[in-house]
Amino acid sequence: MNSITALLYGADRPGIVAKVAGWIHERGSNVLHADQHLDRQENVFFQRIEWESSLNSNTREEGMAFQEMVQTELGMTVRIGYDDDRPKIGVMVSKADHCLHDISLRVRSGEWNAELAGVLSNHRDLQNISESYHLPFHYFNLSPESRELEEANQIEWIQEQKIELLILARYMQILSKDFLEKAGCPVINIHHSFLPSFAGAKPYHQAYTRGVKLIGATAHYVTEDLDEGPIVGQDVTRVSHRHGPKDLIEKGRDLEKIVLSTAVRRHLQNRVLVYQNKTVVFD
Amino acid sequence: MNSITALLYGADRPGIVAKVAGWIHERGSNVLHADQHLDRQENVFFQRIEWESSLNSNTREEGMAFQEMVQTELGMTVRIGYDDDRPKIGVMVSKADHCLHDISLRVRSGEWNAELAGVLSNHRDLQNISESYHLPFHYFNLSPESRELEEANQIEWIQEQKIELLILARYMQILSKDFLEKAGCPVINIHHSFLPSFAGAKPYHQAYTRGVKLIGATAHYVTEDLDEGPIVGQDVTRVSHRHGPKDLIEKGRDLEKIVLSTAVRRHLQNRVLVYQNKTVVFD
Amino acid sequence: MNSITALLYGADRPGIVAKVAGWIHERGSNVLHADQHLDRQENVFFQRIEWESSLNSNTREEGMAFQEMVQTELGMTVRIGYDDDRPKIGVMVSKADHCLHDISLRVRSGEWNAELAGVLSNHRDLQNISESYHLPFHYFNLSPESRELEEANQIEWIQEQKIELLILARYMQILSKDFLEKAGCPVINIHHSFLPSFAGAKPYHQAYTRGVKLIGATAHYVTEDLDEGPIVGQDVTRVSHRHGPKDLIEKGRDLEKIVLSTAVRRHLQNRVLVYQNKTVVFD
Amino acid sequence: MNSITALLYGADRPGIVAKVAGWIHERGSNVLHADQHLDRQENVFFQRIEWESSLNSNTREEGMAFQEMVQTELGMTVRIGYDDDRPKIGVMVSKADHCLHDISLRVRSGEWNAELAGVLSNHRDLQNISESYHLPFHYFNLSPESRELEEANQIEWIQEQKIELLILARYMQILSKDFLEKAGCPVINIHHSFLPSFAGAKPYHQAYTRGVKLIGATAHYVTEDLDEGPIVGQDVTRVSHRHGPKDLIEKGRDLEKIVLSTAVRRHLQNRVLVYQNKTVVFD
Repeated sequence: MNSITALLYGADRPGIVAKVAGWIHERGSNVLHADQHLDRQENVFFQRIEWESSLNSNTREEGMAFQEMVQTELGMTVRIGYDDDRPKIGVMVSKADHCLHDISLRVRSGEWNAELAGVLSNHRDLQNISESYHLPFHYFNLSPESRELEEANQIEWIQEQKIELLILARYMQILSKDFLEKAGCPVINIHHSFLPSFAGAKPYHQAYTRGVKLIGATAHYVTEDLDEGPIVGQDVTRVSHRHGPKDLIEKGRDLEKIVLSTAVRRHLQNRVLVYQNKTVVFD
Repeated sequence: MNSITALLYGADRPGIVAKVAGWIHERGSNVLHADQHLDRQENVFFQRIEWESSLNSNTREEGMAFQEMVQTELGMTVRIGYDDDRPKIGVMVSKADHCLHDISLRVRSGEWNAELAGVLSNHRDLQNISESYHLPFHYFNLSPESRELEEANQIEWIQEQKIELLILARYMQILSKDFLEKAGCPVINIHHSFLPSFAGAKPYHQAYTRGVKLIGATAHYVTEDLDEGPIVGQDVTRVSHRHGPKDLIEKGRDLEKIVLSTAVRRHLQNRVLVYQNKTVVFD
Repeated sequence: MNSITALLYGADRPGIVAKVAGWIHERGSNVLHADQHLDRQENVFFQRIEWESSLNSNTREEGMAFQEMVQTELGMTVRIGYDDDRPKIGVMVSKADHCLHDISLRVRSGEWNAELAGVLSNHRDLQNISESYHLPFHYFNLSPESRELEEANQIEWIQEQKIELLILARYMQILSKDFLEKAGCPVINIHHSFLPSFAGAKPYHQAYTRGVKLIGATAHYVTEDLDEGPIVGQDVTRVSHRHGPKDLIEKGRDLEKIVLSTAVRRHLQNRVLVYQNKTVVFD
Repeated sequence: MNSITALLYGADRPGIVAKVAGWIHERGSNVLHADQHLDRQENVFFQRIEWESSLNSNTREEGMAFQEMVQTELGMTVRIGYDDDRPKIGVMVSKADHCLHDISLRVRSGEWNAELAGVLSNHRDLQNISESYHLPFHYFNLSPESRELEEANQIEWIQEQKIELLILARYMQILSKDFLEKAGCPVINIHHSFLPSFAGAKPYHQAYTRGVKLIGATAHYVTEDLDEGPIVGQDVTRVSHRHGPKDLIEKGRDLEKIVLSTAVRRHLQNRVLVYQNKTVVFD
């Protein structure tokens, strides 16, 4: 038996919960999980609901019917996922390899329900590692002259492959508004600081200079405003005067892996709703 | 406008969510929060649902009608709370004062919707502190000879005061099965270790001897099995070889305050369901 | 037998450790703890050393002789503390009471070796609380007209009382460079964010708007640059979309208490050296 | 220029610090770090001291001369390390692969100054993974009949390879007292619980049954008493009623990797002293 997950949000009005649960029950399906949030300041209602489709139902038809109902009868935005979805992921990297290893091992171990379609990079450093995981590796020369052409090639690959999620696994290039629009799928980035502290370049050096006692990492959806996108997850670890920039970088690697993979897991399990540059995470 | 919170659990069956939400909607009331959990191993369904009673409804009548419906139509166990409840709390202490201060200050600051009815103790040490918060202090001489009589006096006070929650704020006496039954209200204890490690006496000394690198505190409902009741909350803090037993005790005090007060808050906000000696905490 | 603690720093050169330890040993005294740090980028050496003065020694004379030796023979900066020091602390508050309670209870319980000399405030709200701890309360009317005069009165009190540490326990006024110079003692502030994130006013509202997943608190020495002084301690706690600004403020209170009191403890135990707007904390 | 690290401990007596620092200074060498601990209950002194050998010195001769001095003149136990040491590590595994990946990647990235000599296992499951890191894989059939012979083969490999550290990376076999003696090197194990909670088999299932709110992992030196050896590091992560045993196992994997690798790093950097079944960790 398959399960369907819906993420919905929109203006609050009486009876949403009853309507949604009633619709599922009437079809003979059964709610497994439901979590909701009401932003009383904005009067916006959010829900994640997961249900087991009844035996004689076609799951995808049921999901589409639900989506139709929510949009027309409740006027809400909705996204549907199925437990046998295996979205295709593209990974963008530069030179640091720790997040690429971490992601590849999690997919290989079956921890995530997803398929790694390939690795895009502006450097050749991680080609061997990518291939050791049997991941197609695509190099793009992002020099000022070739950038426009190469970004078009990247977009072409993303569209051909029908990529549903891009992960920036320590990709040290800025994605333009135009690129994001054409890519047309969510993009998750790991920033190696506790945002909004130390946005921009060399955050561990900034942290060292300021003398903070904790360093952090932040996973966020990428928007055209660098380091300003909706935060999906954050964590910190303790440091002291004994840690120089090199130690912070090393300590930070473990943090980046955990924070990025936690954010990707939440996304893949349809737990994240974006709203007014913030996230609602039903975890 | 007042809100009602219901905590319900029982054997899972199709349509519970629809039934509950439908009932509330039909009365013109509006769901504010709903959180649920399905234990698929045991096939037990748990829900916390909070709703705003419609304008023309008597809140307590609506709560009782809901309870009636859930029990008769769904065959589930249910507990109802109202946002203007101010349950009476009894605090039991021995000699350590930090948790008593913490609890008293939280109640006084309005952080909790509750009333401290008084302090019961087997020592006179905290009488002045209790009275500085205008809390009636009751001393009970729990010597072997007087114990039976004094426990009866404690029970009498608990019943007369209509105490709805007992907090053992570092109370160093064991409550008998008989006492717990007669008290007839939930009892939350703070144990100064990360249970099940270091149950019993002198947990910080045990922790020191074992050389652990983290010490913990555990808040749990009290059952007749000492230190074995359902856990409501736990936390830990880092220690090193530099910390002797005295340092662990001092570090532990801050931990005990936070863990105990977090557990009490969860209880007072009707976020905790007990089930098979475990808790479901909707937080 | 009494112990002496020295905090020293200066340009590194061979033999400092041998010189310091040798001097103590030759006097028949015995090292209890020693911790050191070498900033290899700046070539600066830091040490905290604590020793038991030999039986026939006058502790304060020994401390002064040590100071003399370190300054003249090693050319280093040094600060000396004695285990029977009881520095006088002044607390500055506005309206929030939680840090004042926390500080007062720690001093009263003997957790800190210090004396609270009194409470200074620009509001009368906490007068009763101060007096319940038998702390003299001094109100200063910091209106634009009276500010200059009142600050002079504050300085006078600080100097008369021989205050050795000022704690800004949620004091919502900026201390001028002139004030800091005249006060002539270290000043520790608690900022209710994870600096450098959300410096300035209303950090919990800023955190809410940005949608961070952790909130923090930072204790730092006060300098003329607001929120830019050397950080003594920081900590964070997890939040979610369910927490509005009011919830963040409430969660933050517990964090602020712990972070501020940890920083004060470190300072009182002579564990903090300030250097290039950063701290070395030997904890 | 090379550095030498010494770990020493023994009965405390006046002048140890002066003697040690003086000896180093007299040879023209320079102390980089020194950290010490005095267990006042047991009157035992511990020190970790790291120094830069002077230009014209042979580092290993200097280390041996230091060792000789400490043993004969101070009567203390001492262990010496050199910054160009590259100890050979043997990894023992069963079927779980996450710790093996983590260890292999850290060694390959140069994070640790060590060499992986090979992988020993009682199952063939991880042979391919081992070989993908170019690590020799040795299978041993530990059936009741062949156990004695195979353990002798394991010991032979350990001795031939001159293994200096054995890591039990989720190795599900008990090492006998006899094996440990013959192996003759330290052995670090990762136990998948917060010891002493849930010693023995299936700790995540035990944790689930008890309903704890945090799960942990513990790295410890292996002694003949299963799960009772000196603890090198521990950490925990938050769980809730939503996590079944399978989720705890998955969450635990990340914890196990971090706790085990942190312990190995501390060991390799000569930061751990064992004493009375506890550790002093100079970190």
